[in-house]
Amino acid sequence: MRTLLIAASILTTVLALRNGLAITPQMGWNTWNSFGCAISEDIVLSSAELIVKWGFKDLGYEYVIIDDCWSAGRNSTGHLQANSTKFPNGIADVASKVHAMGLKLGIYSDAGNFTCGGYEGSLGHEEIDAQTWASWGVDYLKYDNCNNDGQMGTAQATASRYKVMQRALNATGRPILYSMCNWGDDAVWVWGSTVANSWRMAGDVFDMFDRPDPRCPCDEYTYLTCTESGFYCSVMNVVNKVAQIISKGGPGNWNDMDMLQIGNGGMQDSEYKIQMSVWAAAKSPMIMGNDLRKMDANTLSILQNTAVLSVSQDVKGSGAERSWRYFVPDQDKYGQGEIALWVGGLNGPGQYGDQLVLFTNTGTQDRRMNASLATIFFDSGPEGSAPQIKESWEVYDLWANRMDNATANAIINGNGTVPSDARWNATANGGYAGLPSSTEKALMGTKVGTIQPGGTLWADVKGRDVGMFRLRQVGAGKKKRDEL
Amino acid sequence: MRTLLIAASILTTVLALRNGLAITPQMGWNTWNSFGCAISEDIVLSSAELIVKWGFKDLGYEYVIIDDCWSAGRNSTGHLQANSTKFPNGIADVASKVHAMGLKLGIYSDAGNFTCGGYEGSLGHEEIDAQTWASWGVDYLKYDNCNNDGQMGTAQATASRYKVMQRALNATGRPILYSMCNWGDDAVWVWGSTVANSWRMAGDVFDMFDRPDPRCPCDEYTYLTCTESGFYCSVMNVVNKVAQIISKGGPGNWNDMDMLQIGNGGMQDSEYKIQMSVWAAAKSPMIMGNDLRKMDANTLSILQNTAVLSVSQDVKGSGAERSWRYFVPDQDKYGQGEIALWVGGLNGPGQYGDQLVLFTNTGTQDRRMNASLATIFFDSGPEGSAPQIKESWEVYDLWANRMDNATANAIINGNGTVPSDARWNATANGGYAGLPSSTEKALMGTKVGTIQPGGTLWADVKGRDVGMFRLRQVGAGKKKRDEL
Amino acid sequence: MRTLLIAASILTTVLALRNGLAITPQMGWNTWNSFGCAISEDIVLSSAELIVKWGFKDLGYEYVIIDDCWSAGRNSTGHLQANSTKFPNGIADVASKVHAMGLKLGIYSDAGNFTCGGYEGSLGHEEIDAQTWASWGVDYLKYDNCNNDGQMGTAQATASRYKVMQRALNATGRPILYSMCNWGDDAVWVWGSTVANSWRMAGDVFDMFDRPDPRCPCDEYTYLTCTESGFYCSVMNVVNKVAQIISKGGPGNWNDMDMLQIGNGGMQDSEYKIQMSVWAAAKSPMIMGNDLRKMDANTLSILQNTAVLSVSQDVKGSGAERSWRYFVPDQDKYGQGEIALWVGGLNGPGQYGDQLVLFTNTGTQDRRMNASLATIFFDSGPEGSAPQIKESWEVYDLWANRMDNATANAIINGNGTVPSDARWNATANGGYAGLPSSTEKALMGTKVGTIQPGGTLWADVKGRDVGMFRLRQVGAGKKKRDEL
Amino acid sequence: MRTLLIAASILTTVLALRNGLAITPQMGWNTWNSFGCAISEDIVLSSAELIVKWGFKDLGYEYVIIDDCWSAGRNSTGHLQANSTKFPNGIADVASKVHAMGLKLGIYSDAGNFTCGGYEGSLGHEEIDAQTWASWGVDYLKYDNCNNDGQMGTAQATASRYKVMQRALNATGRPILYSMCNWGDDAVWVWGSTVANSWRMAGDVFDMFDRPDPRCPCDEYTYLTCTESGFYCSVMNVVNKVAQIISKGGPGNWNDMDMLQIGNGGMQDSEYKIQMSVWAAAKSPMIMGNDLRKMDANTLSILQNTAVLSVSQDVKGSGAERSWRYFVPDQDKYGQGEIALWVGGLNGPGQYGDQLVLFTNTGTQDRRMNASLATIFFDSGPEGSAPQIKESWEVYDLWANRMDNATANAIINGNGTVPSDARWNATANGGYAGLPSSTEKALMGTKVGTIQPGGTLWADVKGRDVGMFRLRQVGAGKKKRDEL
Repeated sequence: MRTLLIAASILTTVLALRNGLAITPQMGWNTWNSFGCAISEDIVLSSAELIVKWGFKDLGYEYVIIDDCWSAGRNSTGHLQANSTKFPNGIADVASKVHAMGLKLGIYSDAGNFTCGGYEGSLGHEEIDAQTWASWGVDYLKYDNCNNDGQMGTAQATASRYKVMQRALNATGRPILYSMCNWGDDAVWVWGSTVANSWRMAGDVFDMFDRPDPRCPCDEYTYLTCTESGFYCSVMNVVNKVAQIISKGGPGNWNDMDMLQIGNGGMQDSEYKIQMSVWAAAKSPMIMGNDLRKMDANTLSILQNTAVLSVSQDVKGSGAERSWRYFVPDQDKYGQGEIALWVGGLNGPGQYGDQLVLFTNTGTQDRRMNASLATIFFDSGPEGSAPQIKESWEVYDLWANRMDNATANAIINGNGTVPSDARWNATANGGYAGLPSSTEKALMGTKVGTIQPGGTLWADVKGRDVGMFRLRQVGAGKKKRDEL
Repeated sequence: MRTLLIAASILTTVLALRNGLAITPQMGWNTWNSFGCAISEDIVLSSAELIVKWGFKDLGYEYVIIDDCWSAGRNSTGHLQANSTKFPNGIADVASKVHAMGLKLGIYSDAGNFTCGGYEGSLGHEEIDAQTWASWGVDYLKYDNCNNDGQMGTAQATASRYKVMQRALNATGRPILYSMCNWGDDAVWVWGSTVANSWRMAGDVFDMFDRPDPRCPCDEYTYLTCTESGFYCSVMNVVNKVAQIISKGGPGNWNDMDMLQIGNGGMQDSEYKIQMSVWAAAKSPMIMGNDLRKMDANTLSILQNTAVLSVSQDVKGSGAERSWRYFVPDQDKYGQGEIALWVGGLNGPGQYGDQLVLFTNTGTQDRRMNASLATIFFDSGPEGSAPQIKESWEVYDLWANRMDNATANAIINGNGTVPSDARWNATANGGYAGLPSSTEKALMGTKVGTIQPGGTLWADVKGRDVGMFRLRQVGAGKKKRDEL
Repeated sequence: MRTLLIAASILTTVLALRNGLAITPQMGWNTWNSFGCAISEDIVLSSAELIVKWGFKDLGYEYVIIDDCWSAGRNSTGHLQANSTKFPNGIADVASKVHAMGLKLGIYSDAGNFTCGGYEGSLGHEEIDAQTWASWGVDYLKYDNCNNDGQMGTAQATASRYKVMQRALNATGRPILYSMCNWGDDAVWVWGSTVANSWRMAGDVFDMFDRPDPRCPCDEYTYLTCTESGFYCSVMNVVNKVAQIISKGGPGNWNDMDMLQIGNGGMQDSEYKIQMSVWAAAKSPMIMGNDLRKMDANTLSILQNTAVLSVSQDVKGSGAERSWRYFVPDQDKYGQGEIALWVGGLNGPGQYGDQLVLFTNTGTQDRRMNASLATIFFDSGPEGSAPQIKESWEVYDLWANRMDNATANAIINGNGTVPSDARWNATANGGYAGLPSSTEKALMGTKVGTIQPGGTLWADVKGRDVGMFRLRQVGAGKKKRDEL
Repeated sequence: MRTLLIAASILTTVLALRNGLAITPQMGWNTWNSFGCAISEDIVLSSAELIVKWGFKDLGYEYVIIDDCWSAGRNSTGHLQANSTKFPNGIADVASKVHAMGLKLGIYSDAGNFTCGGYEGSLGHEEIDAQTWASWGVDYLKYDNCNNDGQMGTAQATASRYKVMQRALNATGRPILYSMCNWGDDAVWVWGSTVANSWRMAGDVFDMFDRPDPRCPCDEYTYLTCTESGFYCSVMNVVNKVAQIISKGGPGNWNDMDMLQIGNGGMQDSEYKIQMSVWAAAKSPMIMGNDLRKMDANTLSILQNTAVLSVSQDVKGSGAERSWRYFVPDQDKYGQGEIALWVGGLNGPGQYGDQLVLFTNTGTQDRRMNASLATIFFDSGPEGSAPQIKESWEVYDLWANRMDNATANAIINGNGTVPSDARWNATANGGYAGLPSSTEKALMGTKVGTIQPGGTLWADVKGRDVGMFRLRQVGAGKKKRDEL
């Protein structure tokens, strides 16, 4: 069999033994999408400061990741060194300052001769490089796949190459989250679990919603045998790929759908909501990619929706299933338009836990969507045989408590009032590990109804938007956190 | 050439020389589908008792298989040990008790670092683990593919990994049936024959009939190059895959379509009949997966239809061919609906042996289906050239003698009468190896007609049901068993 | 670049240096299709006698090939030995007698642990087996792919395995034609040229014309990535595959489309003509597979059409191109029906050589088909730029001189008259290497017209039949053989 | 991430460090397409003379490449030697004379046992052969893939084979451009960058525009998993493949779309314009393949359009993106017809550089095509967010200044007048590296209009033709070269 349907909590412990990291999908921020090679100590540190200042840190965004182009190559002893113009005080100094802010530092390299940006790669230098990073205090490695010398093309070839760095990181003795970035090639989803904490499962996501681009030549139909994962992949391109391998992730090992483009300007607000929602439901790492210095209210209120983040960080670590998907006639200018239902199990006080229900509507028209309890709980018993169907379920809308712009601007501007239930302070409350009480709006959103036994959840979903709901068994969820 | 059309009985001997096991597809019961990780000595032994008590043992269901989650990892000497809570007396004790009941014990491990459930895998520990199991008296190994360290992606990589265990099992000197479970990846059907007694040929079958699920992303069109076999595969998904590789099985080496879901509640009775029928016709191992303690009459009368099991266990060991398949307009809610004809050779008293004819109708409507003798015997001479067409054939309906619920309940409840021809006692009669006499209803079902030379078999097949027939040459099958 | 467009005659020499065999596609007869495992010394020798008696030998059918099931395994010194019941005098004795008839002997083995029929394979025993065969006087090895131990799945894995036998055969010092039979897997058409004299390029051809069968799961659309070449492949299934790799064959190295089914009863006469014609045009080995003892006139007159064989054995060794192919509405009961044009260069007296034009019509209706000179000579200059278009061309119908049944029966029965131009005696005339004179009907068929410069060839082609023509430049072909 | 969006000029330096060659796509001429094996010293040297005489050299066509069939095998010391009939003075002498003309010499070999033409291959002889070529003064190696001994089928197998020659060439100390020709197999576009200066990315281009041919069996839909790249590929077949991997090229490493067929007679003038335009836009090497001695005016004026070559040789080295593509109803006789837009960044004086806009219309009808600034600059910000949209852009038609036939004939005949702005003398002006001034018609073509902020470029494009434009930001491009 392929996965564990029962006793997932036991598994969590077992798998996590490997390096103890990424028990829930990692959260953080990365320099690439906004800055590319034009990075600097100032950009990294000022962004880190904003992560703290604007409260992202307390929501769980923890890793500050320096992507490509930080390097000046190797010195005479073969050690990588930082570009002294961009990082005049070195990476160790940056790490020290990031740590002082209560955050962690990530760095980038490449399992090849050169990075994608043409800098020195780590292939053949794994041990010395891992030692270097550990000595600098690095906590996270994003490890890319460019210029890989042809050591690829089979799972065995690629895994062998990436395992060398795994061993090198482990040998440092420092806990370093290992984020493998081979773009989903060579069926990494099958074997990634014993190699890394996360693995990119497709090409680079561009800041666009569903436009096809020949540079991202594989769609969901050709995904599994794709030999050119590409870039300029749309959000929906990746969404429909991850549905096929959703079960491969689990505590300590995650399918990485690539960084969030939220706030970068190429999509409309509701499209960014879709990215946020599906990334959370699918248990992708949540790595922001926007220029934090240009943060606006809409962007902040998406990225800080802790009711959605609570799904991402749920202790069950179980990626949602795309239960169904249909094409719709109200297509956009690229001929795209579809509706889908995603469902998945969440931690909850009831006998069966809570349940996630996510409707996505990428058509241009608003529509009423529905899912019966039989459909929602199909995995627990097909065709109406699941016991959950006989229960009543409270429905919480996870976007209904989205922070309003006044509040978001108050955070950004450091003035005005931030209501206490606007967002969940994970730092102060032990993360997202506990059972969210139904009265905690920052985790549960807003209660919008109840489904009777055998009933159906109906939701009005606007065009190009989502409906994201958390179901809680009636009679199980009324206790407060400290009573659970 | 690829297969042997002539003198199959000789082959049986030759191939069987390897380890002498699974000369016909193995039969038994496995813990996973009903219990997952929540297994125990009690569940295993009480199920074994029911296998004996309810007569499954005498029908040929022989292996009691403990699936994943039995382990507590390795002890200080590197030996696997059972979880002492679940198996307080150890596996050897379970084996001993199972053997005392006249059954055999199977166990589970994984050709990777961890099992699918996150327990210790056997990769790199093949010899010591095989020795351990042999010392415990284990008779069967289900060997899974999770967390396989990237030693996959080509036939050579995967075969190399699985052959290590093959050699280790052989080295124990104990006959241990080797059930390879790499989900059909890396074209295992081509090379499995010299590695294992059976090989899973696709993803995990879920208790559903034909619903597509993105987690089982390959259908029959993408099967041969699939790199993510997945799970939540429907019965029909696997049926249409096995048709492509049906000839790869043979005595000692079988395509494994995964466990039977019969009795697990997600399908209707006639859909379970379809699974039973095609699994038997295709010569898949017949491993029950239901909770035996909750056995009901319908379930028992499917699993105990010895006229169907006689097809499974036929000494020719020749998987049936899907002669044709058409889509039909009377689709179900998932847009599925098709009809097909499967035919295959069986042991029989006539010059040409008996012949299996299986109609499947997955449309929602009842329909009359037909197959001419020219079609039924196409493999013996295309386009009307087969000599069998000139013969008359008696038609036996293999489901017509299905046990009625009163009889089934009498078995379950241990009261009432069980007619002598309700089922075939394989134990008492030397298995299924002999030629079934046409008067033995437990093996032949009910005679329903005769096809004249050049004629056609017509059958009324209900919606979502099967018609399964055994043809016997007129003049050849009237003798009794001891006269054959 | 991929092939040599110019100076092909030079190449012939260069490539042939390897082992000097199969300079034109090998011709012969094989036991499998008619006898399977039920072979014997008597069948082999009596068939060889018929090959001589009925004149097949003088037409070029040279190799008598014993397929699977001849073996009794290895003796105490590890040498393969023949089954003493089937071959009481041993294979060496058979070879000696076959040689005495002026024919050559082929044998079968398998690059695996067991043959497809379950006998001892040669994997790991290549040297001793090659030595054994050489010592017996074997001239030809068909080397199969069953039970291959998983040493497959990449070109490198499969080539490595087959190269071991190549070296072993070469080391014997005896010229042994090496016929590789790995069913077209692992892109053998790319690399086969330095390994073997021919390579099967697809699954086993069954005696049927165009019926799809799931056991031959790949069609022309999935051919190139097929991982289960299968068997029960129709003639048209293989035809549409070979079109894609036609240029891979050449003197000394041939795409093997599998044996001829002509005379086995599953196809109608005109369908067998199609197999004969396309196999010849595509430069496949021509290995008969029928039971020679049951030869009838129709079968003999197809297999002995030396005007078609002259295409097969043409010294240019250039496989014909499928210039176009269209589906037609007049489909058969399997929904199949298509028309196609094949063209190719042949040896000829004119400046540009002769040219083959082959129309295939697999629709059920008769139709008039045509090809302009611009299309026929497209490869020499696309879109009307080829110089050949400016010439006039005589048209010879290669099937018009097919032997009539009276003549064929005279051959079979050893009575009556055989006209001197009924067939070409290759033995007496130095094979097919010389330039056929336009007056030699046995090589040229019947002249049916002339195409003017810029003109078009029109041909009436019956349903499910071919039109096969040889074009000769006007003014170049009127000389007799000894004047050329 | 996969590529570098920022600071491309830095990258140029970094990647170029490898061997310093092909910083822009190589330009030259190759013997194969016109002469095949019928080559000679005279053909090579007389062609080189024409390259100089007719000014191709001064436009950047630098490499004179001797393709297959120059060899006479190895001498007693294992050194390759030239065919003494074709090259009576040896290759070193040819190199010396070519160098004396200010050109460079290329040679051909094969990473296999034999070349495609059947001559000695270099597999296993890499060091001695590289030394031989270096000693002869060779500057360029085209390294083919025929008869490769099965050392293929995975990226690793193929890369390993080609890397041996890479190291051998480097070891000679002589700068030798390494042009890998493995036909795009084994995903060479992913790993080629650290192995060679260019890599063929598909099968051989034949002198035809868009006719499908089964010998080039993969189209754009099956390209990425193609195992038979084939030959007789049309221009459009390759165009639609390169769109998927366009970003893999960059300074020092290029996707090679195969040689130009311009002037070979199989396409009409406007179709050759399409090949010239897309090859330049996609940054393919520009290697002429026509018989220079038969040069006509139309051919010369395409190959000498320096406004198009300036795109090819642009220092950004950034392949254009195929922004969209649609099928059109006005198909040709092969059922082909499509329109597409390609856009890409170019070096330019403005803040954002210049921008290439290329419309292709392969329909049979003339049509008006358009692209909005939002579409043209999509990569800089999707859905209207790019800052370039707010600027005005001058539009230069890169084909409007195509040399007229009188001028072209003046060049060919060595009489008449060649206007100074008819073509760019790269030799005299430091190549194409500088910023082209907007008044330099030889580089900029003819100004045809201006696009206002937020506006759209409209162009009338004839059937089976292109519209190729260079956009320059208003206010940025009016300076002369020496003022830039």
